[in-house]
Amino acid sequence: MNQVYAKHDSHDLFYRIPFGAAKSGSRVTIRIKTGGVECAQMALSFFDGSQQIVPMKRAAGVSDHTFEGIVEIEDGYIGLINYYFILDVGLGTLYYGCQADGLGGTGQLYDTVPPPYQITVYKDFKVPDWFKEGLVYQIFVDRFFNGNADGMISNPKKNSFIYGRWDDVPMYIKNAAGDVERWEFYGGNLKGVIAKLDYLKSLNVTAIYLNPIFEARSNHKYDVGDYKKIDPMYGDKDLFELLCVEAKKRGINIILDGVFSHTGADSIYFNKFGNYDSIGAYQSKDSPYYSWYKFRNYPDDYECWWNVKDLPNVDELNPTYLDFIIHNKDSVMRHWIRAGAKGWRLDVADELPDEFIEAFKEEMKKEDEQSVLIGEVWEDASNKVSYSKRRKYLFGTELDSVTNYPFRNAVIDFLKSNIDSSNFARRMMSLYENYPKEAFYAALNVIGTHDTERILTVFKDKSDRAQQYVKLAIVLQMTFPGVPLIYYGDEAGLEGGVDPDNRRTYPWGRENSNMFEFYKYITDIRSSDIFQKGEIRFVPTPADVLCYERIYQGRNAYVLVNRNAEKQISLNIPARGMNINVNALDFKIIM
Amino acid sequence: MNQVYAKHDSHDLFYRIPFGAAKSGSRVTIRIKTGGVECAQMALSFFDGSQQIVPMKRAAGVSDHTFEGIVEIEDGYIGLINYYFILDVGLGTLYYGCQADGLGGTGQLYDTVPPPYQITVYKDFKVPDWFKEGLVYQIFVDRFFNGNADGMISNPKKNSFIYGRWDDVPMYIKNAAGDVERWEFYGGNLKGVIAKLDYLKSLNVTAIYLNPIFEARSNHKYDVGDYKKIDPMYGDKDLFELLCVEAKKRGINIILDGVFSHTGADSIYFNKFGNYDSIGAYQSKDSPYYSWYKFRNYPDDYECWWNVKDLPNVDELNPTYLDFIIHNKDSVMRHWIRAGAKGWRLDVADELPDEFIEAFKEEMKKEDEQSVLIGEVWEDASNKVSYSKRRKYLFGTELDSVTNYPFRNAVIDFLKSNIDSSNFARRMMSLYENYPKEAFYAALNVIGTHDTERILTVFKDKSDRAQQYVKLAIVLQMTFPGVPLIYYGDEAGLEGGVDPDNRRTYPWGRENSNMFEFYKYITDIRSSDIFQKGEIRFVPTPADVLCYERIYQGRNAYVLVNRNAEKQISLNIPARGMNINVNALDFKIIM
Repeated sequence: MNQVYAKHDSHDLFYRIPFGAAKSGSRVTIRIKTGGVECAQMALSFFDGSQQIVPMKRAAGVSDHTFEGIVEIEDGYIGLINYYFILDVGLGTLYYGCQADGLGGTGQLYDTVPPPYQITVYKDFKVPDWFKEGLVYQIFVDRFFNGNADGMISNPKKNSFIYGRWDDVPMYIKNAAGDVERWEFYGGNLKGVIAKLDYLKSLNVTAIYLNPIFEARSNHKYDVGDYKKIDPMYGDKDLFELLCVEAKKRGINIILDGVFSHTGADSIYFNKFGNYDSIGAYQSKDSPYYSWYKFRNYPDDYECWWNVKDLPNVDELNPTYLDFIIHNKDSVMRHWIRAGAKGWRLDVADELPDEFIEAFKEEMKKEDEQSVLIGEVWEDASNKVSYSKRRKYLFGTELDSVTNYPFRNAVIDFLKSNIDSSNFARRMMSLYENYPKEAFYAALNVIGTHDTERILTVFKDKSDRAQQYVKLAIVLQMTFPGVPLIYYGDEAGLEGGVDPDNRRTYPWGRENSNMFEFYKYITDIRSSDIFQKGEIRFVPTPADVLCYERIYQGRNAYVLVNRNAEKQISLNIPARGMNINVNALDFKIIM
Repeated sequence: MNQVYAKHDSHDLFYRIPFGAAKSGSRVTIRIKTGGVECAQMALSFFDGSQQIVPMKRAAGVSDHTFEGIVEIEDGYIGLINYYFILDVGLGTLYYGCQADGLGGTGQLYDTVPPPYQITVYKDFKVPDWFKEGLVYQIFVDRFFNGNADGMISNPKKNSFIYGRWDDVPMYIKNAAGDVERWEFYGGNLKGVIAKLDYLKSLNVTAIYLNPIFEARSNHKYDVGDYKKIDPMYGDKDLFELLCVEAKKRGINIILDGVFSHTGADSIYFNKFGNYDSIGAYQSKDSPYYSWYKFRNYPDDYECWWNVKDLPNVDELNPTYLDFIIHNKDSVMRHWIRAGAKGWRLDVADELPDEFIEAFKEEMKKEDEQSVLIGEVWEDASNKVSYSKRRKYLFGTELDSVTNYPFRNAVIDFLKSNIDSSNFARRMMSLYENYPKEAFYAALNVIGTHDTERILTVFKDKSDRAQQYVKLAIVLQMTFPGVPLIYYGDEAGLEGGVDPDNRRTYPWGRENSNMFEFYKYITDIRSSDIFQKGEIRFVPTPADVLCYERIYQGRNAYVLVNRNAEKQISLNIPARGMNINVNALDFKIIM
């Protein structure tokens, strides 16, 4: 038996063409270079669990030792095709598959069934350019700005609290059992967002994602009380329409946060506390909303989100719920798209059935083709399993975009030296490979949200260098494919640990001006085509330096980030015929 | 041996003359009627613990069986003289003393040393008439009225909360350990008190007692931060002076709440959190305030009020503290008397040494002879023991007035049928006997305060009759000797359990108008001389009916209260030659 050798690299067009995700009905050519292998086959598995063995033949005109096989994708099929190689080595069988991390690229030999490669198969779709080329600013309305000229709080809620001062530190007011006893507010509102549109425009913002703004008891409003009413502390429908108009004038679109896996217990629909005039599901089995909810033992034992009794889960596929949210002439979705919203972010997409998301997208695109649908997903959304079910988020029929927390994790891991630059590249290449290109360029690249520590606090352990680390993170965010999201206040140097500390108020008048100027500088750079639309190619580098190239219409740009806090690093880029020095803990952007 | 019999009744002038407390240097004649007694003596005990046996002789011109003795009170002596009788019954000795409840009046025979009677001996003093004849209204400023025309809250404190709505239910915001985490405010202020002066005038109010108003972190302000500064949420010194001037115009005096047993930890003086520019005792042993406090182990282990770390106790007799509060040219006491205050209520008088209170009163009366000094005492203040020491509150050198919680307890006990009318009379006669007359007529007759359940809530168990019970309580309060205190909001039918529920906001615009009209009616009646100044005499009645006579300048008034919720009661008053019917759960006032 000869020395056995094999190589497949899904990122290399020699081995797999075309790169990455494939359209339904297309074909993908797969190659594997070998030594000591007599015969090779591909084992394919499909979304429905079915399997297929595809023989490979020796590739013509390449090398005797290279086998080639074709993955013929049936027209209409969407989902994943996973593959690995079965290699006949004469006296036995070996396998070749992904490395254990499942990230694609170069794999390895196994003597048992290996982790497979992934081909994402999607129905062709197009994400509106305005979104892919945009820059999103996320606003937690209560904490952004109070636009009332007299500083009054609009319509404080019964048995709630207002923070004594705008710059007070947020906290939950809980009872001895640890449950929220009363909700606390600062008094930010839609007038405040309108008042700051010029400010956002100056930061090159092209879309505002608003955390939920419909009437609800809490300050976060993920406990919706009335899907068709703006919370009175924030404003009303007229004011929302005005916001959309004024934003549009400045080239800014408004994206809403839709919470459709549950409602508030204190809602028109459930009405546990009798605060609404409706007959809620909690009040009577004759309620028009009774069938929306999942009672185990009526009325007090009901299914709810993470067992939070204030958030009763809904049956999203209940016909009257689907009609109410999606299909009706004045459905919730239509109501707000018609009022001026340019898209929705679906909260906890993992909790929403594929059928719900598909119907939502279909009807929303009918209402406004240029609207976008974003899903809150925390991992690689192409192969996400939720509730033991593979999800179809990115196969063309559901989401335009998903929140890119894997990007955030990789940035932080790299800058904190938890991983080397090569691993950063592997992780990002894996997303690039697994996501349909439209989805990759539409991925919402977050560096911090209302659900994470703020980025400055992430690097708090770097003491006086923390700010420099943040800048490097922002350089990566703003020069990477995908849509950057600025979480309000990050640009002002706001700090904040986990919830509720990450929801401090925007420090008007106390901004960190150095950080703010940097955001202006880097978002200006972001606004160029090459960073909005260019291809990406990673350049091999030493562990502490990350370098990638962006390519667009024959032009190149290079981004270099040196995480080493002590040493300048010199990098040779042959393609440009030049050596580039990057100072310790610094970056270079070469355009 | 003959049948032994004895009777002494301290409330009957035949047995003890003069009635009640006695002036220093005066004499009290004591008699005891007996049968089978050969010889009688009085055993006297004095304030310093010394004892004296006084022989009694057979009273001339009365009866062979009545013994008489004289208690000669040394001029300059103040304090208590307790007495009981030692009776020689031939073959042995018996004793006669008070009944076990120690309330005076008719006593009984004992075969061992009995509970003694009490003669309170005082240095003659005079309480300003305006106070004795007045009607006090207590205001917890944060909860009364926000006088800002625009409804804004003045100067909210850092890391505090404002209630979302004026009518929200009060609560403490505590951490998991059960300590207050942040203070919460509604935003009442001195402007609000000024704005409502005409309202108070319409209720016949002649004095306002303000809960503490000096700068402090909390909403109750018993944790003083700066004795010489009005809390900025409430106003400033100018506004306080304006309040005094405007009140005076309406015949209303302002009484302040002085907290001198401890300060706030967050104060100029202790400065635990460094919030003040001073060098506080907590910060350095070189602090000018270091000697005020009682450190067990510097700086974190210090004596504090009820072990509340926010309230470090002071050594009230420390010379620099005495100077600061009392003696200095611009002492705290003088500072605010000169600003217009007409008196002080001393918080937790039991914690203040007699020497402190004496010095305070002496200097205060020099500053303004018409000012009043009130002590917070919860029991009979004539024989109160605190920290194993008998207190000298009412002996002429200290307090003008004490809070009369025993009155409140008796009223509630009677109306709730815990005691009969005769016991109510006994309890009140005991105070009448034990208090110098000036003090009895100056006693602050509370029916509810910031430290008790509200009176309407006390009777909540009477459901729809609760309001009627409250009216009966208020009739007793307004027709009794002593100064009635209305706790803000009681007149509007405000409810509230124990702290913090008893500190709800005044329900402007949502007043219980029936209750309010009753308060107007009954305070009008209170304004007559006979109820402000008249003598009191209880009329024997059936258990469910309370009847007392007020007598002034030859005129009489009768007050009858029938607590029986079912039956009308008919009462014969021979002195008036008439039968009076009192409806079930009703009252009559006959003038």
